Amino acid sequence: MLYRYRITVEYDGTNFYGWQRQDGLPTVQQALEDALLPLSKDHTVVYGAGRTDTGVHAIGQVAHFDLAKDVDPFRVQECLNFHLLNMNAAAAVIDTVRVPNDFDARFNAIERSYIYKIMMRRAPLVLLKNRYWHIKHYLDVENMQKAAQYLIGKHDFSAFRAAGCQATSPIKTINSISIEQHDQSLSIEIKARSFLYRQVRNIVGSLYMVGCGKWSPEQLYTILQSKDRRLSGQTAPACGLYFQGVKY
Amino acid sequence: MLYRYRITVEYDGTNFYGWQRQDGLPTVQQALEDALLPLSKDHTVVYGAGRTDTGVHAIGQVAHFDLAKDVDPFRVQECLNFHLLNMNAAAAVIDTVRVPNDFDARFNAIERSYIYKIMMRRAPLVLLKNRYWHIKHYLDVENMQKAAQYLIGKHDFSAFRAAGCQATSPIKTINSISIEQHDQSLSIEIKARSFLYRQVRNIVGSLYMVGCGKWSPEQLYTILQSKDRRLSGQTAPACGLYFQGVKY
Repeated sequence: MLYRYRITVEYDGTNFYGWQRQDGLPTVQQALEDALLPLSKDHTVVYGAGRTDTGVHAIGQVAHFDLAKDVDPFRVQECLNFHLLNMNAAAAVIDTVRVPNDFDARFNAIERSYIYKIMMRRAPLVLLKNRYWHIKHYLDVENMQKAAQYLIGKHDFSAFRAAGCQATSPIKTINSISIEQHDQSLSIEIKARSFLYRQVRNIVGSLYMVGCGKWSPEQLYTILQSKDRRLSGQTAPACGLYFQGVKY
Repeated sequence: MLYRYRITVEYDGTNFYGWQRQDGLPTVQQALEDALLPLSKDHTVVYGAGRTDTGVHAIGQVAHFDLAKDVDPFRVQECLNFHLLNMNAAAAVIDTVRVPNDFDARFNAIERSYIYKIMMRRAPLVLLKNRYWHIKHYLDVENMQKAAQYLIGKHDFSAFRAAGCQATSPIKTINSISIEQHDQSLSIEIKARSFLYRQVRNIVGSLYMVGCGKWSPEQLYTILQSKDRRLSGQTAPACGLYFQGVKY
């Protein structure tokens, strides 16, 4: 008899080599599996809803795993957080629930959301260092919003797909992109069932070009149609990206 | 001929031994004076509007200093930020203006404001580590708001004054205390012309006792009247406190 748990995880991606386990490198998956060991005794795989790259943060990454014992979810969370703190791992479990054994954090997801944060000011970032993409001037938010409209819906996103992407098809459906400015801070929220490798950061890098006035909003449509990665913008820095949450 | 400048400074207090210069220890004042040296050539004192303790942050500390040359404020700021970054000091100058030579960052201040941030959740803090006071349960915000009303106005604040306070009188006037909750986050904003040593953190420590239900709101009035530091709450941790700004 196995008991399945779903956890919601917050992490500071700065010192992790991303989500996925890699021999000899600190990753979030590894940290969670290590923190689970005192409870599970045997090595237990923690399956995440989405892989995040080196430096990318999470407010609400979701994962599942099985235990051979029926442990109260509150105790599971306390145990995980105790050991994560002890290991000095910059991750915390913020929610833990028991789920049916056929629940799968990755395959049952119907929507994932990411937030990308940009700070527009001349001075270097101090309190928000490694939490925002720092841009030294203002961006044209209205034009960025116009450009974003071209990306919403079902498209071939080859132009925003990074090398090494393992998806079988470059066709994805973006449900929404919302861009909000509060004084010097800009946040871009993107929702889709699933994403191509670095799709969000590549989209943000292209929206940035529009915001700088180097591209017209319409140019983003041309780039999308081209399906050519060489025509789209730079990959925006990892430190501005947050895996926000998953809908099931 | 001297040219006076007023700067607004943001800093992450975590790795500073407070604002004030101390031999051999990293402080914000020292960092700014060191960063000014390439421009000023001679050692130049940077006078702050308020001293902050080890671990206390600033969003809008204000300071002034004089230069023997008439340098454009934009260039002064760029130079300071360049050298602060080079020194790996967690401080940045976010505004710089020329002011009349009789401007004094400390003595001309008519109001100072501090913000104290509390995060109420079971899980350890990760993305907001060293930025909030972490409390593992909810506080009774309504009662904290009631209690705070007793402190507004002109009072003898001896009960909230730390040992080592250099003020000649324990009488201060608090202009306002506003306590706002957003989900798990609580922010307490306190405004006064000036404060006693650790007055804000001692007030927050006492409001915390009310929030925990250990004290009634009225008890804060009794404690204020007692003028006895031994009766008030603990000094709230430095990491939740931000020097928000100064009015002139």
